[in-house]
Amino acid sequence: MNYCYLNGELILASQATLKLNDLGLLRGFSLFDYMRTYNGKPFMPQYYMERLFNSAALMGLEVPINETEILYYIEELIGLSNLPDCAFRFLLTGGYSLDSMSVTEPNFVIITENLPLEVPERFEKGVKVISSEHLRELPEVKSTNYMKPILLAKEMKSKNAYDVLYHKYNEISELSRSNFFIFKGDTLITPSTNILRGITRRVVLELANQHFKVEERIISLDELREADEAFTTGTTKKVMPIVQIDELQIGKGEVGSRTRLLQQLFDQFIENY
Amino acid sequence: MNYCYLNGELILASQATLKLNDLGLLRGFSLFDYMRTYNGKPFMPQYYMERLFNSAALMGLEVPINETEILYYIEELIGLSNLPDCAFRFLLTGGYSLDSMSVTEPNFVIITENLPLEVPERFEKGVKVISSEHLRELPEVKSTNYMKPILLAKEMKSKNAYDVLYHKYNEISELSRSNFFIFKGDTLITPSTNILRGITRRVVLELANQHFKVEERIISLDELREADEAFTTGTTKKVMPIVQIDELQIGKGEVGSRTRLLQQLFDQFIENY
Repeated sequence: MNYCYLNGELILASQATLKLNDLGLLRGFSLFDYMRTYNGKPFMPQYYMERLFNSAALMGLEVPINETEILYYIEELIGLSNLPDCAFRFLLTGGYSLDSMSVTEPNFVIITENLPLEVPERFEKGVKVISSEHLRELPEVKSTNYMKPILLAKEMKSKNAYDVLYHKYNEISELSRSNFFIFKGDTLITPSTNILRGITRRVVLELANQHFKVEERIISLDELREADEAFTTGTTKKVMPIVQIDELQIGKGEVGSRTRLLQQLFDQFIENY
Repeated sequence: MNYCYLNGELILASQATLKLNDLGLLRGFSLFDYMRTYNGKPFMPQYYMERLFNSAALMGLEVPINETEILYYIEELIGLSNLPDCAFRFLLTGGYSLDSMSVTEPNFVIITENLPLEVPERFEKGVKVISSEHLRELPEVKSTNYMKPILLAKEMKSKNAYDVLYHKYNEISELSRSNFFIFKGDTLITPSTNILRGITRRVVLELANQHFKVEERIISLDELREADEAFTTGTTKKVMPIVQIDELQIGKGEVGSRTRLLQQLFDQFIENY
């Protein structure tokens, strides 16, 4: 029984509702974020808060409570959760609209969720992804528009693909819900524009800087052929190796040694967090 | 006090809610439609039903009740409304998702709404619009993603603009919530691709066919300079003249005689409906 914060109250998530004239529901005008705990502690909360408030500013929405208040409610929700670790889904919508188009006082929700279980084999053997031409509307905003990957769900399932890698104008940006990296030799490269700035991406870059040359720059679609290794980073995916993109095998088609090192460094980081 | 249909029940719209794990709310995976009455009768219901079911099919969602059942509930809602005329907002979402990404049994809602009041002067003097580079993700689907016009709301207000005209790759498509037409001499031209096929557009084309040469084809951004008249059509906008696009005055900057004829023909059509 998970609880949630909804506009000032802590209630059972299963009993929480929004009215039909919420602008997130009527017009998709809504943003979210997704933070998790490690060892029962919120992971890098200041990074997540920074991103949440940045998304809100870019959409012209005001988060109704401040960072300190949010982190207070997070601690309350952890206490209520009875879980060793959990995730928090923040949702900030355009509010209850009187004319179904005008933004009003935002609705703000923090939902406690069970962490999804990741298949351990994937971290060992890597995953396959498909590519698709797409660019999110406001890439730096974690908006709720996920029409693209939901429409691709059947194709991904039939191709046994883990996720979809977006590209547009021959430039790679990100996966549907995580960031993208390649290794060319000892150089780690990750797109720097048209992406959501992932928190795991940020931590991995900090860890990688001590071991590899790091380049944040455009990766062209063609450059994938030159990649020795590839992986994606995300809050629940951590460092997830990618060994195939469409029909292209990356490197030897198995998890490379550099990706393994980053997995180990990240696992150590969260173990000691 | 307007009523709504929500998953099989008729209840007060102000008391209707959806749970937080609705996929329309969490992931913007949702479509809608908007039908109105004239003289207390649903306007062209078969056209609206066709479009609603087409949107649903393109998004892989099944409308839980059939057309006959929908029209039965519409009559019930009209009876409960106590309004001479009203509008119905249909909303079909990806349902309550267990993992916040997978589509389940759709939630289906029909909300009775008061018709927005249109300023009569606009029909007489025409409106100004701004243009913006944009292409909706699935143009033939009336999806709920309206991030673009909501983000532009401040700019539109400051420029006294009525709406925004979308173009991409130098091709004009539509306004944020209505279709676009120009007259060049006695030829009526309207975009045929990358648009939502409006019901008022369809009726106006049927009426115009008897008086003008009609071309459904691409209109380039540059071609606007050659337009003698312009207007937009929509369920609540009917035939709304456009006399200025950004800094460009259309024709003489006043409502042209051909647009006036179409306004009269449409007004006659709805008067006798």
